[in-house]
Formats: sequence, C-alpha cells, structure tokens
Amino acid sequence: MFQTFDTPSETAATPDRVKRLRALLAARKLDALLVPRADEHQGEYVPPCADRLRWLTGFSGSAGLAVIARKSAALLVDGRYTVQVRAEVDATLFEFPELPRSRVAEWLAAKVGKGAVVGFDPWLHSFCEVEQLGQALAAKGLKLKPTAGNMVDRVWGLERPPPPVAPVIVQPQRLAGRAAEAKIADVQGKLKADGHDAVVLTLPDSICWLLNIRGSDVAHNPVALAFAIVPALGKPELFIVKSKLEGPAREHLAGVVRLSEPAALKERLKELRAAGKRVRLDPNTAAWWLARALGGPKRIARGPDPCLALKARKNAAEIKGARAAHVRDGAAVCEFLCWLDGADVNGELDEITAVRQLEAFRRATRALREISFDTISGSGPNGAIVHYRVSEKSNRTLHKGELFLLDSGAQYADGTTDITRTIAIGEPSDEMRERFTLVLKGHIAIAMARFPKGTRGIDLDPFARRALWEKGLDYDHGTGHGIGSYLSVHEGPQSISRGGMVPLEPGMLISNEPGYYKEGAYGIRIENVILVREPEKVPGGERELMSFETLTLVPIDRRLVVTELLTPGERNWLNDYHARVREVIGPEVDETTRKWLEKATRPL
Amino acid sequence: MFQTFDTPSETAATPDRVKRLRALLAARKLDALLVPRADEHQGEYVPPCADRLRWLTGFSGSAGLAVIARKSAALLVDGRYTVQVRAEVDATLFEFPELPRSRVAEWLAAKVGKGAVVGFDPWLHSFCEVEQLGQALAAKGLKLKPTAGNMVDRVWGLERPPPPVAPVIVQPQRLAGRAAEAKIADVQGKLKADGHDAVVLTLPDSICWLLNIRGSDVAHNPVALAFAIVPALGKPELFIVKSKLEGPAREHLAGVVRLSEPAALKERLKELRAAGKRVRLDPNTAAWWLARALGGPKRIARGPDPCLALKARKNAAEIKGARAAHVRDGAAVCEFLCWLDGADVNGELDEITAVRQLEAFRRATRALREISFDTISGSGPNGAIVHYRVSEKSNRTLHKGELFLLDSGAQYADGTTDITRTIAIGEPSDEMRERFTLVLKGHIAIAMARFPKGTRGIDLDPFARRALWEKGLDYDHGTGHGIGSYLSVHEGPQSISRGGMVPLEPGMLISNEPGYYKEGAYGIRIENVILVREPEKVPGGERELMSFETLTLVPIDRRLVVTELLTPGERNWLNDYHARVREVIGPEVDETTRKWLEKATRPL
Repeated sequence: MFQTFDTPSETAATPDRVKRLRALLAARKLDALLVPRADEHQGEYVPPCADRLRWLTGFSGSAGLAVIARKSAALLVDGRYTVQVRAEVDATLFEFPELPRSRVAEWLAAKVGKGAVVGFDPWLHSFCEVEQLGQALAAKGLKLKPTAGNMVDRVWGLERPPPPVAPVIVQPQRLAGRAAEAKIADVQGKLKADGHDAVVLTLPDSICWLLNIRGSDVAHNPVALAFAIVPALGKPELFIVKSKLEGPAREHLAGVVRLSEPAALKERLKELRAAGKRVRLDPNTAAWWLARALGGPKRIARGPDPCLALKARKNAAEIKGARAAHVRDGAAVCEFLCWLDGADVNGELDEITAVRQLEAFRRATRALREISFDTISGSGPNGAIVHYRVSEKSNRTLHKGELFLLDSGAQYADGTTDITRTIAIGEPSDEMRERFTLVLKGHIAIAMARFPKGTRGIDLDPFARRALWEKGLDYDHGTGHGIGSYLSVHEGPQSISRGGMVPLEPGMLISNEPGYYKEGAYGIRIENVILVREPEKVPGGERELMSFETLTLVPIDRRLVVTELLTPGERNWLNDYHARVREVIGPEVDETTRKWLEKATRPL
Repeated sequence: MFQTFDTPSETAATPDRVKRLRALLAARKLDALLVPRADEHQGEYVPPCADRLRWLTGFSGSAGLAVIARKSAALLVDGRYTVQVRAEVDATLFEFPELPRSRVAEWLAAKVGKGAVVGFDPWLHSFCEVEQLGQALAAKGLKLKPTAGNMVDRVWGLERPPPPVAPVIVQPQRLAGRAAEAKIADVQGKLKADGHDAVVLTLPDSICWLLNIRGSDVAHNPVALAFAIVPALGKPELFIVKSKLEGPAREHLAGVVRLSEPAALKERLKELRAAGKRVRLDPNTAAWWLARALGGPKRIARGPDPCLALKARKNAAEIKGARAAHVRDGAAVCEFLCWLDGADVNGELDEITAVRQLEAFRRATRALREISFDTISGSGPNGAIVHYRVSEKSNRTLHKGELFLLDSGAQYADGTTDITRTIAIGEPSDEMRERFTLVLKGHIAIAMARFPKGTRGIDLDPFARRALWEKGLDYDHGTGHGIGSYLSVHEGPQSISRGGMVPLEPGMLISNEPGYYKEGAYGIRIENVILVREPEKVPGGERELMSFETLTLVPIDRRLVVTELLTPGERNWLNDYHARVREVIGPEVDETTRKWLEKATRPL
C-alpha cells in the first residue's frame, strides 16, 4: 500500500518538545521562533525528516506556521485547516489566531515586547517572505534574526529520521518528449533574454523536469530532492547526494550536468558572487539563505523559476502519455466503481476498504508507480471535509442513503492522474440530486467553455459557480489546479480560481473540479483532468478560440442527475462524454465491468 | 451647448513649439523631458491650462505621455488611442512606439546615451510612477530629474489660458445624504484605524464629495480644483483659490474646514514633516512633489485615498437621487429616440445634429447642469471607434441600412447618468441583428446576475462576453465602470473588467456596457447604469446573494433583436424591462413619445 491510515496526531509528546525548544530559545537569547511546514525546497510535500511542524505540534496539514514565544505559542493555518488544527493540536499550548501567515507580526507584537528578537531558519522561508515579514516586524519594533542551524532539529536529536536517499531514475525521452539538453537550452535562452548570468533552481519538480529524472524522496511526488545552478552559458551543475545515483541515472546525468554534493552549493554561490554575476532567484520559492549567500536581496536578480512556464505546456509526447495514463487509470477506476456497486454496503464496507480496493485495481494495471496523493475517501459527513484524510480513527462504514466522495490519483511513468467521483450509496435524497446536478452544470460549463487567447483561469472560474450561485450555494476552493506529467499533482503557474491570473495556453493540463459541501451531511465534487487545446478558427468568427479536451474517462453517476435541470446542450455533453467513456474504456475492462459500464453510460 | 465640435488637431504649430522646447532642454542641460496628459490632480479631465500634451503635440486623447529628446520624440498611448494618435499627431516629429507607459525607459535607453538626464515636472506624475520609472531608468543607466516649474508652460508663455476659477456651489445635504462633518469623521476614523496622523487629498472629486461642494473648473465633471489635508483629529484644511468662493459656499465651507490659498500647501506640509507626523498619500494619485515635500517616499504613509471606498457606496439619498435622475434622463432620451425614428435620415440628419437635438431634449428638463462627457455619436463605421468624438471634420450623415451608436450622459444635481443605445437606421442586416443579440445576451447576463458577497467585477466580466466568445467575437474594453453621484462619470474603485479586483458592495453604481465593433463597418454597445442591491436570503440557499437593479430606463431597439437567439429567461428579462420602461417613463413624456414608447416596448 502506498497509503497509510495512521492517526496523524501525536500530541502526548508536544508539551515536552515545546518546553525543550523554549529552553533552547532562552539559551540563544531569542524571544520567539518561527516553525513553518516548508522544507528547503518550499514544496507541498516534505520528507519525514523535514516535517518539523508536525513533530513539534501534531498538526498534519500541508501548510501552516507555528510561532513559539517564551510564554505563548500560536499556530497559523489557512481556511482549509481551521477545523483540523483544533482537532489535532493541543489548545492549552497553542492559540489559533484567525490571521493569514502574512500578518503574523500582529500576533507577535501583541505577545512579545518591543525590541524582541524573532528567530527563523534561513533555509525554510522564501526571501520574499523574509523581506515582507522583516518590514512588518520592524514596523512593530521587532527584529527578525536567522538562526544558525535548525533549532527544532536540535531538540528532535537522534530521533529525527534521516534525509531520504531514494534512487534516481531516468525519465525516458520517449515519455519526456524533449531531451534534457534541449530543455536546458530553452532555460538558457530565457536567461539570456532577461540578461541574467545564471539561475539557482530549488524546486525539485523543476529540476526533475529539466533533467528528465524522477525520484521518490517524498511521498506521492516522484521527485528527487536536489538543487541546481543553470548558467546562461555552459553546463548546469546538479547538487545531489550522490548515493542516490545508480548506473543509468548517473550515466544520463553525467552527460548533461556537472555532479556535486549538496555541500558544494555554498562555495559555488560564493564564487558567483565574487565574480559579480547576475544570478536569478525566484523570490517566492528560493530560500532566504540563498539570497544571503549571493550577497543579499539587492545583489540578486528576481524572476520566476524559468522552468515553471515551460513545464506547464505539455509537449506532444507528454500529451500522448497523459491520454494513455487516463485510459489506464479510467479502466481501473471503472473496475472499482463496478465492484463498489456490487458490494454489500450495509455490511463491512468502510472508507479504508474502499481505498485499499481502489489501490488494488490500480496496482493490477502493473503500471502504477505511486498514488499521486492520499485518497480522499469520504462517506456521508466525512465527504464534506474538503481535505479529509481517512485514518483508523476517522474510518466510517458506508450507509444507504448517503453520498460517497472519492478523490484519488495515480502516478504512472506516462502521466499523473487526479479524479473525483461522488457516488450514490442506496437511494439519494432529492436535495442531493439537485445539488449534484448544480455542481455538474458548473463542471460542464468549464468542459464546454470556448475562450479567446489571453483568457486566464480567473475568467473561467465563475462559470463553474454560476448555477450554484443562483441557488445561494457555493464552494470554498478553486475550480482547478495545474497537473504535472509524472510529477506533482499540483503544479503552477496556471489555475482556474479566484487568483488564477496566468493566461491559459495550449498544452496545459488542469483539473476541473467544482463541488458543494453540506457540513455534517455530505460532500459533492466532480473532477476530471482537462487539456487546453490549440486555438481554432470559428466559422464567421474573428478571434481564434481555445477550448478543453477532457482526458479523464469514468462515468459520472447518472443516479444523481436531475435531467430536467440540464439544458439540452448540457445533456448532450454528458451523453457524448458517456458514449466516449463506453467506447474507449469498454475494451479495456473485464466482462462484468463492461456490463456495468453499459448501464452507467446509458444516455439520459 | 455643452459640447463642442472643433477639430481637435492643430499640428501646424507643433514643429515650432517642439523646437522651442528643445532649446529650453539644451539650456537646462536635460537630454529629454516627459510630458504627460495629467494635471496636478491626476484626474481624467484637465482644464485647458493644463492640457499641455495637446498644446504641444495635437493629441486630444484622455491619456498619453510624450517624451521629447534632443533629436527624437515619442508619444505613448494605450490601445484605445493607437489609431487616433496617428490621425492627430505629426509623424515626422513623433514616433508612436507600441509600448505601455510603464516601459518608456526602453524607448529612452535606445535614443539617449548612458548617463543622460530625463526631466519631469514633479507635480504631474504620481510618486508611485516616479519611483518605478526611476528604477527602470537607473537600470538602463539614465537619470530622472525633477524640473523647476513646468517647461512646456515656459514655452507656452502668455498664450497659455489662465487656470479656471469657476464658482463653488454647495451640494445640499438633501441630495448628498450625509453632512460633510459626518463624512470627515468617517475619514478620520479610517486614519485612526490605520495609525496615520493625516491624509493629503489631491483628487478633486474626493474633496468635493467629502465637503459636499461642486464646481465647474473642468469640462463635464462638476468639480472644483483644490487640495485638502484631513488630520486624524481636528478641522481639515482646504487649499483653494478663494475667488471661487461666493457667499453660500464660503459660509458652508467655513463651518467645516480651515480655508487657505493653494500656495499655503507647501508650508503646511513642511510643518507636518517637521512635527514628525505620519502623513498618508495615495501612491497612485498623489503627485511626487507632495511626497518630496513630506520628506521623500520613505517618510510618508502609503494608503488609498480614504474617500474612494466611502464615496463608491451611495447612501439612501444618493440612490433616491440616482433613480430620479434616470427617470428624467430616460424621458429625455426617449423623446430623442422618438424624434430620430420620425426624422428623415436620408436627408440632412448628421451626427452633430443628433448630439444637438439630444442635448436640447435634456436641457428641456430644466434640470441639466452639464453633460457628463462628450456624446459619442457614431454612425456606420464611426460607431466602431470606441472613443469616437464627432468633430466638424469627422461628421457624417446617417444612412439607411446602418447602425447608429449613441453614448451620452448628463449631470443633474441629483445624479450622473451614462447610457448607450444602438439604433437601427432603416433595415439592419442579419449579421447586425445576430451580433446585437449576442451583445444583448451579455448585457442581460450582467443585469440578471446573482452572486455572493466578496464577488468582484473581474468575476462577472466573463458573463458579459460568453455569448460573443462562443462565436469567436469579443470587445476590447471593460464591461463596466463606477459612476459618481453628480460627480465624475468614471469613478473607482470598482469596475466590471479584466482588472476589477474590488469586491462589489451594496450601493455601488456601475455601468453595464458590453459591445461589439466591426472595424470600418459598425459598432454596437448597450449600456445601462446598474445599482448593487443589498444581499438577500434565497429560499433553500445557504449564502446571501447580491444582484443588480437597472436604473436606466430607455427601450433597447427591438428591431435589432433575434428573438430565437434568446433563452426564455433572457426574453422575460427584456420584456419585463420594457414593461417597466413603459410604466415609469410613459407618464413623463408627451403623447407622441408615449405612442412611440408603446411600440418600442411591445413584448417579444
């Protein structure tokens, strides 16, 4: 199993850990310390050795910031985690101020006196954040000070897990679609155009994409942790623990980069600085430590990681791979849904069993490398928790008359998938069916959208909400996120959301996942992965239009659709989609599933 | 007549003026000079004495930046004016680089050598612009230097018109809805909450709103040019030419502010600086001169002009006034449309005659104070020029088979109006009718929109474009702008546009004006003013919904509507709207117009 079901919270040890950390604060003459979730790479997932926030506080969410002062402590989380943080973290030790992380200075100012010194690990905060936080603290008379080494690690001591050293594998050019040398040349072209001498890459998925490698240093994301420097001219240098490199990977990499141990990074930055080079860092993702090593914020060139925009537009081979991955994954999910429909839900079937069974069907494809995230398996009220992670403790059996929300994905060598289906267990209520249909209308509005060049995700997001808005309903998350190619299941820069200011471009993969959540009752989400098509001329039109191709191929539960609420165009879309699912997935599944598929894809 | 029809361009004198300016540049050892359209208040309209850009170059648009170097010159305009600038400005003297103003440094770097000095009038650029421009120029090795006095004025000499000194009038509390003292207290509350000791107000419409006064220093905008300082505690100080103040205005103002001549501003800023006060300036609208007088960018507190957000939400009296103004204005426009339908279009009727006639109907209300902008009266291909201003030279007679686009507005004491109607002259083509209907679908989508709190204009803008997008069509302007209450016809901070990031709030007035333009053929725009309603509960819904009330009451040309392209909901909206127009406007107009109205508002 790739997924685990342990209960995340382990608060018993927290008081002692916080106490020991405070003793260290006192010894170092610090009044407070920042403990973020991030690791040195500012990625969404971190290896266990970097999960300091969880070890210290018990909080298991994917984003958060603890502040440990001498006599008080706070844990700041965003809207996704306000419920979870209270369930997991000891409220006698921590406050949970309803403040965005960017306003942590306000909490601090109220807790520590003027002139107080707040410590931070210079590796765990982007330099943009440190700049802004430094200014905000200065305005309140507080000082921000980098610590030498990580203070939580010092308390953690020998119990801290070792850093991961999983072997690196080569992503074959057949799947990557472009040689590492060619990608490096693209990045170098960008650097020359911007007048920069080099860029320091810190995001593992950027580096893995650039060099056509993959790894397994963190859960669910097939990346190897590393840093890289790409000069505008000459060979890039990869800073990676060399024991991760076996034969083929070492051979492949030796051809395209200079290989060094991570410890060499500091020296190399010093050399760049001494040579007066203009070195580019991404202010949002590069650690403050790097900016300091290069001579401080004024000496560095600011610019987005040049891999981001290049990686987001999938090439022909990656698109071919994504289509194949979605057929394979669609077949496995159909087998699961067929099995679920035949299972005795009023018996033993629970959320964890469903996760195990789904993973088993995906494993049976023999192509599964990993799941792309912890499956969200939410029955009844658990479906209303947007980021629900089932544990032995929260596990719940499925009951008739409930909805079951299942959000899952897989990592195959040719592509990453992400799909959500909401399934009626027994007979759904009229309200469930009506609201499911409203969510479906939003999903179809995105799937059918046609839009001119320059359209951004922010422009499409309202289409997904309109039918819900009309009824006084909505959902509190974005409609879609970018998706990697056998890489992170969440990747930028594009999104369909209230903040999605990046224009959509052909070749981008993005999720289409409107939802609706009734707290304490049920959750609905319908998610497919869609691909931005090339702009096309329209008869009689003046501007070329872009549109989406839906890649995910799994039936949407017909039993939850109120046909009369659909316009003829929406109904046609659903019937056409189901016909395509039947046609493409039918030949890929066994007889039982095929029969189920026939029924599940009947026209409405 | 409030409107004039003179041909704007007078390029004959330009070479001599530029030559004399260059001689002055040489004398002052400057390599180049910036000449923006703005005046000291950064408003959209400027008095003739401040229209330096037009005097120097002949360009009459409402935004632009000339750069005069020793041997070359450029005029930078935005997308609205790329055609107009070529028609008005001498291309042998000026280049028209397709660069946004923010990138003027690139043009300069290519024209003047490293180390060159670029002059600017410190009163005519916001301090935010100067900061950014200074950095951009520094990166290219150029220097930005404030000039002593305005160099164009020096060349202009005695021919330059004197500054306006139109009398100030009091906006009665019955119409303003809130006493100046109460508004001042609101602003002071905001300053205290933000920890600022005072704010310098520079926008004339903010000052007029705050103090319940109006003026006529600039065309079409009923404002008095002035500056003000509002302290967090105590009486504000208004810096205004005192000859503008007659009995009632002086009496009213003396009760709420300290009155000073504009020349006293400098001294007062010096005092604030010496006293170490935290003085707030709006970085986007306050002149760099003010920031310098307060000790430079690091010494001042940055924040939006606090009047902007307060002024945008109209109070009950202002809303009542707006409704009355729209009924009065709607009746006048209906009389005009009735007259137009009866006129012999294949004879003498031209664009200017239409403007005169429309203004005559508005004057006949006896309540017209001004028009709110130069009427856009575009027949046939002139309708496709989004910011068309008819002049004796461009004037065109109306012909059968054409569309006539008429965008106009009025200033009444109780409200400002802005309405666009597109009228079929003779028999329209199928294409015209189809595209009109697509624009109408967008207009109705906004008019009928229901949306939760927090929704921004950017979220609604795509609804207005969706029907056009589907056919490969679009329009290159925003869908709606804020509107003042007997103030500027364009006011922020809200908009329905690709950049409209400000949440819509109850009481905001905004235009709803999607369009479509076929270059060289015709233009279509349908514009009503809409009011954001208070959020309301929806049966069965969870979130309160906001919506719009349409205030403008004038028929939309039925002859241009393809009924079959409308959904039943859209058709109902149009029929209901027309029934309301008939019911409300019918009793306000003469018998002939009432008969016309009956016909023009028949259900579809």
